[in-house]
Amino acid sequence: MPEVWRAWDSIVAGRTIVDKEGLRRAVQAGKAAAVGCGGLRYTQFIHDFENIPRGTAVFEEGVIYGYPSIGRLLALEKGLARQFAAPFWMEEKIDGFNVRLCRVQGKTIALTRGGYVCPFTTDRIADLIDTAVFEREPDLVLCAEVAGPENPYSESFPPFIAGDVRLFVFDMLRRNSPRFLGGQEKQELIRRFGLPAVDIFGRFEPKDLPTIRAILKRLDAEGREGAVFKEDSPRQRRTKYVTVSANLSDIRSSIYTLMDLAPDYFTHRVLRTALTADELGTEHPAELKQRLGAAFLDGLMGAIRQQNGEGRISHRFRCRFRNPDNAGELIHYLKRAAGHVQVVQRSLRQDGDFWVLEFERIYPSLNGVLNDWLTGRTVFD
Amino acid sequence: MPEVWRAWDSIVAGRTIVDKEGLRRAVQAGKAAAVGCGGLRYTQFIHDFENIPRGTAVFEEGVIYGYPSIGRLLALEKGLARQFAAPFWMEEKIDGFNVRLCRVQGKTIALTRGGYVCPFTTDRIADLIDTAVFEREPDLVLCAEVAGPENPYSESFPPFIAGDVRLFVFDMLRRNSPRFLGGQEKQELIRRFGLPAVDIFGRFEPKDLPTIRAILKRLDAEGREGAVFKEDSPRQRRTKYVTVSANLSDIRSSIYTLMDLAPDYFTHRVLRTALTADELGTEHPAELKQRLGAAFLDGLMGAIRQQNGEGRISHRFRCRFRNPDNAGELIHYLKRAAGHVQVVQRSLRQDGDFWVLEFERIYPSLNGVLNDWLTGRTVFD
Repeated sequence: MPEVWRAWDSIVAGRTIVDKEGLRRAVQAGKAAAVGCGGLRYTQFIHDFENIPRGTAVFEEGVIYGYPSIGRLLALEKGLARQFAAPFWMEEKIDGFNVRLCRVQGKTIALTRGGYVCPFTTDRIADLIDTAVFEREPDLVLCAEVAGPENPYSESFPPFIAGDVRLFVFDMLRRNSPRFLGGQEKQELIRRFGLPAVDIFGRFEPKDLPTIRAILKRLDAEGREGAVFKEDSPRQRRTKYVTVSANLSDIRSSIYTLMDLAPDYFTHRVLRTALTADELGTEHPAELKQRLGAAFLDGLMGAIRQQNGEGRISHRFRCRFRNPDNAGELIHYLKRAAGHVQVVQRSLRQDGDFWVLEFERIYPSLNGVLNDWLTGRTVFD
Repeated sequence: MPEVWRAWDSIVAGRTIVDKEGLRRAVQAGKAAAVGCGGLRYTQFIHDFENIPRGTAVFEEGVIYGYPSIGRLLALEKGLARQFAAPFWMEEKIDGFNVRLCRVQGKTIALTRGGYVCPFTTDRIADLIDTAVFEREPDLVLCAEVAGPENPYSESFPPFIAGDVRLFVFDMLRRNSPRFLGGQEKQELIRRFGLPAVDIFGRFEPKDLPTIRAILKRLDAEGREGAVFKEDSPRQRRTKYVTVSANLSDIRSSIYTLMDLAPDYFTHRVLRTALTADELGTEHPAELKQRLGAAFLDGLMGAIRQQNGEGRISHRFRCRFRNPDNAGELIHYLKRAAGHVQVVQRSLRQDGDFWVLEFERIYPSLNGVLNDWLTGRTVFD
């Protein structure tokens, strides 16, 4: 069993909670640190530490546990049988970014997967969800995906979202507990407060494979990301399965960072594409090959045109805010997290009730390589 | 200027030759070693050392210099203008393996790029070339490519070779000299001895770009690898340009070692495909995308079928020998050089004047990953 699953099983069994002594050791080991973020002071777990997941945030009101990694299945029949000892819920996996919404110091905030206050989502919370839920359930933590064409983090988004962003609740925690609420309780709260949530396809067993596969084939045909399976049992085991479309979308939206990503980023996605296409058998092989080739080449041919034209390979992002100060916070946050990529603000202008931020991500590594090659350097390999 | 070019310029300028003192230092530094190979004792440069290229072999009769790395161009117009100060020969680059043929201790042998005696090529020399050339020119070294469907090293080969292998001379050295013979002298020797050689397309200057590009487009359309440009001047600078077809062929023939290759093996070839397609503009984009997708997926879908069927991902090779002992030598050599790949002999049987060897390359890394995934393990990434 991989390390992370052991950690996970141990967390959901409630055997580990953050106490003062543990916190002190985590800070000493450099795994957690005091931060000031979004006007709040708290302790953030920068790395996993003794079964406490990265992204865990410790406020005076209590601990908001991090959202743990979910393992990926690449073969449905054997995988579902092997992973699950009880019936499981099948829910849609949305191509967006993971946040945890909670009420802290009288304010509703969105924490990123890493445990930062997300300046974008926090600014837009009231547009995305009726925050009245937190009046009635102040210790509730909503785990949700934010997705759409105007998200500040990723070029990819679900095709059924035409503009701006939307939020989809998919799990719930309570303060000071690493255990998720059970499927029934979660669905009851979603209904009671009219929360926007991911599609829940049903409660299945491994013998329901034909139904499960048919749902995934439909999601794939619609260009949607995939599904998460959640065991309806005390151990709450989770696993995910993503479509061919999602693998191709990953390649397409990451091609400008070709030179910066982990070595196996693209090769794993190509291999997954082959396995998923074999599993779902969704289309004519010639069409699949063309889509894979396009996922690689559309962006790269565009990069060559950009390099020959403007001399700079970049992608433009656009997103909306209620408070223009939060746009500045976002740019600050993105610059810090950008790694090899440069983030440059282009404009911030008022448009009705919103402030529209436009910024560019510039990709110096691909830029540099293409510049060398296009100006006639020789390459030794 | 990259290290290797500096070494090369220095070698061709004749400033560095292997002497006894240099040899002693190379052996002490672990860069060269005494070997017994193909029934011969000699000193082999395992690595580059003080401007002496890897693959250099020191016999009692003298030094056979290694064939140096040739840099790759990715933009023809700017590249040719930047790299060449004088007219250059344009010759076909053949998709095969590099050997140096020479006469040592009364025997004609073929050295691999790394400086081993190639058991396969040495066995077949008399089929590939009229060795009478070495009676008249005993100190000549023929640099050649051996290629064809029945080669023991690579799955890829030029489409115009229907069976077995052929040999193509593309450069000449003399014993004890790292300098190539000039283009005219080489062509004269090729004519005089009727040697099989690569196509020589002509002697060009950068202003001949339209002709050069037209030749490369034709080679690409015919599925051929590309061209080497050789400056017709004392410094003998060389550079190469490979076609879209060759990049795709590299991906296709290496896909079973997806997990073992250098991190940027595939990403570089995808990027080169985009650049070369942009340069040569050879075909409809949809067709190019489908070919790139097929280069990745045909092999992987085959691997999944093999894994689900025989449970073992492998590729079968076949090649012919005159002397069956050399088949054993080849298997021994391949096993030593195989790295992560397993080499297993399947059969060796007489067929007319030949002995036909069949062996398999088995790919444990891809095998292991696919086995894990197909049996339902979860993957954390």
